Formats: sequence, C-alpha cells, structure tokens
Amino acid sequence: MSEAPLAREALSHAPPAAVRAAVRARRWTGNTKRLALGHHQANVTIVPERHAFDFMRFCQRNPRAFPLLDVTDPGDAVPRLAAPDADLRTDIAAFCIYRDGRLTERVEDLRPHWRKDHVAFLTGCNLSLDQVLIEAAIPFPHLTRDDAFPAQYRASIACRPAGVFHGPLVVSYRPVPEHLLLRVIELTSRYPLSHGGPVHVGDPARIGIADLANVDWGQVPREEPGTVPCFWACGITAQAAALASGIPEIITHAPGHMFVTDLAVSDRTLG
Amino acid sequence: MSEAPLAREALSHAPPAAVRAAVRARRWTGNTKRLALGHHQANVTIVPERHAFDFMRFCQRNPRAFPLLDVTDPGDAVPRLAAPDADLRTDIAAFCIYRDGRLTERVEDLRPHWRKDHVAFLTGCNLSLDQVLIEAAIPFPHLTRDDAFPAQYRASIACRPAGVFHGPLVVSYRPVPEHLLLRVIELTSRYPLSHGGPVHVGDPARIGIADLANVDWGQVPREEPGTVPCFWACGITAQAAALASGIPEIITHAPGHMFVTDLAVSDRTLG
Repeated sequence: MSEAPLAREALSHAPPAAVRAAVRARRWTGNTKRLALGHHQANVTIVPERHAFDFMRFCQRNPRAFPLLDVTDPGDAVPRLAAPDADLRTDIAAFCIYRDGRLTERVEDLRPHWRKDHVAFLTGCNLSLDQVLIEAAIPFPHLTRDDAFPAQYRASIACRPAGVFHGPLVVSYRPVPEHLLLRVIELTSRYPLSHGGPVHVGDPARIGIADLANVDWGQVPREEPGTVPCFWACGITAQAAALASGIPEIITHAPGHMFVTDLAVSDRTLG
Repeated sequence: MSEAPLAREALSHAPPAAVRAAVRARRWTGNTKRLALGHHQANVTIVPERHAFDFMRFCQRNPRAFPLLDVTDPGDAVPRLAAPDADLRTDIAAFCIYRDGRLTERVEDLRPHWRKDHVAFLTGCNLSLDQVLIEAAIPFPHLTRDDAFPAQYRASIACRPAGVFHGPLVVSYRPVPEHLLLRVIELTSRYPLSHGGPVHVGDPARIGIADLANVDWGQVPREEPGTVPCFWACGITAQAAALASGIPEIITHAPGHMFVTDLAVSDRTLG
C-alpha cells in the first residue's frame, strides 16, 4: 500500500471520502483549497457540552460567520449529516487546542484528546466555492497560484454575543479585478452556506484593517493592481471567539485544514 | 382607547409591531393567516434550558420542519433578532402547555408560566408565504376563503432524532390546481426559511395519510376537483415531538396562532 504523498491535482476531483482517507493516512497534510471540488468544506469547532448550547446560539446569531452544516451529539466524533462514514478525530490534518483563551497546542491526531462531553460544530467555508469560482474564471490568487492562500483579519465588526461567546468578526480577503466585482458579489451571494456575499468592499480601514500586510491568519497578500479589496465573513471567527471567551477548552481545525464533507455545494440549502 | 376587535383586512398590510400590539391588547385573537403580509411568522417552542441543546440539534437536523429564525437566551422572552421590541409571553394569542407528553393546558397569557430557565425557539412557517402566493394568484383555500385553514397530518416520515427529541414529521396540506403544480413547487422552493418546496406531491397514502378527512390539526379540507394533493413540512412537528419525547414540560404557540416577526420574507436568508 503506497504511503507516498499525493498531489493536490490528484485530489481536486476526488470524492470527499477519498480526500478524507488521504488525510487519515497522512498522504495529504496541506491546506484543503481546491480539494474534492464542489463539496462543502467545513470549519470544525469542538467545545465541551456545557458550552455547546451557548456556542450553537452564537452560530445561529452570526450566520454570516457560522452557517451551520452539522452538530454532533456529545461524544460522537461522526458528523452524521455531513459525512456519516467519517471520524473528525482522524480526518482533519491538524487541530489547534485553546485552553483558557490561549492557543496551547497543535496536534495531528485528536483521538488522545477526545472526550465523551465533546460536541463538534461544522460550519461552512469559503473554500467550498472554489469550483464555482474556477468555472466562472474568477482569478483569485489562491486558485491561480499554488503557493497562495487567502489572508484573514480581525475586523472592527462585533459578533452578536451568546452566553460566554463574543468577539470580532474575522474576515477573509480576496482581491477582485474591477471588471469582475459585480459578478463576484452576485456569485458568492448565492451561497449563504459558504458565507454568502462579501461583508465589505473597498477601503480595508473602514472595517478596522489598517494594513493588509499585517495578517492575523493566512498569507500576507501581494499587491494586485487593478483590483478592489473584498472581504467575506470567515469561520476563523470561532478561533477569535475561543480566545475572547477564555473558556477552559476549545478545539478547532488548524486554519486552512478544513474537514471535507459529502455535502454538495450545488444543494444551496440543507434538508 | 378602542378595545374593539379588528378585522383581518385591517391587519393584513399592517406592520408586524401593529399586529403584535393588537394581539397583546386582545383585539386580535384569531389565527394569523394573511396578517402583516410579507413578514415571517414563526412557530414558537419553549423548552427548559436543560433540553434546549437537544432541541436545537433537533431543529438543525430537520431543517425542512424547523428553519431556525431565532433562539432566545435562557429566561429572555424577547426575540432579539426576529422582533427586538416584542415579548413572546404577551404577543401570541394562545399557547399550549404539554406536560409529560400530554397537552394539559391552553393559556392566553404566558407571563404566569414563564421561568428563568425557559428558552424559546422561533422557526419558520408556511403562512409567511401568503403574500408570495397571493401575488402569484395561487388560489389556496386558506387565501380565498375566510373560514379556511390548512389541515395538518402526522406523516409516516420520521424526523432525525436528537437527544430526547424524536417523532414523525408533521405536514400541512394544500390542494394545488393541476396547471399550477410546477409553479407552486418552484415558488415555494425558493423560501427554505418557510419550509421550502413540498415534501410530497400526490397520493396521501404514500406518506401514511389514509384519509384526508382524518386531520391531526387544522381543518378538514373540502374536496377540490382538479387539484393535486401537496404536502409541506410543518412546524407543528414540534408539538408531535413534545408528545413523543415525554419531557416534563414544553410550551408552544397554539396551532395557527403564530408569532409575527419583523423579518422580511424577501430576505430569503438570515444575516
């Protein structure tokens, strides 16, 4: 059985289960952009059951940041709606563990850390739209350059709080060529389960981003003449809430290393 | 100050706050069809906090029945997203209280029954589409006849369970003229927050309804020659789950007496 690493292209049109198998076998450990194209990729946030209802209300109140795809029963590592043959503990390449509001550990296998009171929330992700954007020939850097990945920033937009959870909206940045601006707004607006349309277009300072080079997550973007800065709500908002809430423990996927679900992006709505 | 009852027509194009004020003053005590047209009407299900996370997962897993519009903090009777100046305890004309899996009481004012651990779930309702259907000239009986109201039935379709909550999907029935069938499917499918498209079209027996005259809620429908029976998921599914779960207490709006929110149906998605 081959253990050789796989190329991104080999997994771009693979079924979601094949991508998860590659992640599980550690034949794929990179970010998940352009993988299993056409399927929802999910942000994963794991909280103890005692904070789960607070977190679920936090998601419901901030649907731009947290379009809910699936929520597991306490102790169940199988996302029964989104990927019933998967195990969240092994099918994500890397996790971040936050304790008392600080990132304390990054792990590759969650099994030793999984507890019976853990609840996992799967929420939509912008990378799910890669196929839609490729088909529409939208030249986003993360699609046209192998080494590029979107930058993310804390915006000066507060999430609606719920229980112990609060914090800033985190946004992901993409430069949009001026002549494609309306097309990109229209296209992305059709997919509320993947954050929908942009929350801001234009001057980054208007949402508290003084310098695009000063990223909070992801890559420092190149200057792109002839483009308009566009910002979308981002699931990393959960990481910011983890830090702000200071609850004893919260676990997330490592940024960029999403969980690949069986859900088709073309479905638009759940159920 | 006039205390006279109002006519339905006086409230059809009234702002949602005016409808709620009329309900609060008991100048409107009937069902809410065709009221505050163009705004979301909500099913309301109130459970103790200890069952709230189970019920919220039950909603998320059965989005056809329970498109979530708002979830309150424990003890807060104000739906902060859906109608921030409302009070759920006074702004619904009648409530049903279920104890240990049985309907035990029907009350008009929830204030004496409200507790600090109560959590209210607001979920979408088919009546929210009345304006859309009127504009499209769809002659549903509940729109064309003042005394008509849709029938509801327990279908032989199981909800996905979550914690203590399980039970059958409850469906609402509307007879659709044959030549309008595709139009009605297309129109209603556009509104997932109001149950979306039908879950069944045609022979009622296929979803376990042996006799349309044997309704579980709502009115016995007339025979309507030249129509096709169509069934949509219905928020009364919460009542069926209340009965099936047998939890000590669950409170709902009385069927047909929905909570009128400020949310515009034309928005299609939240956030």
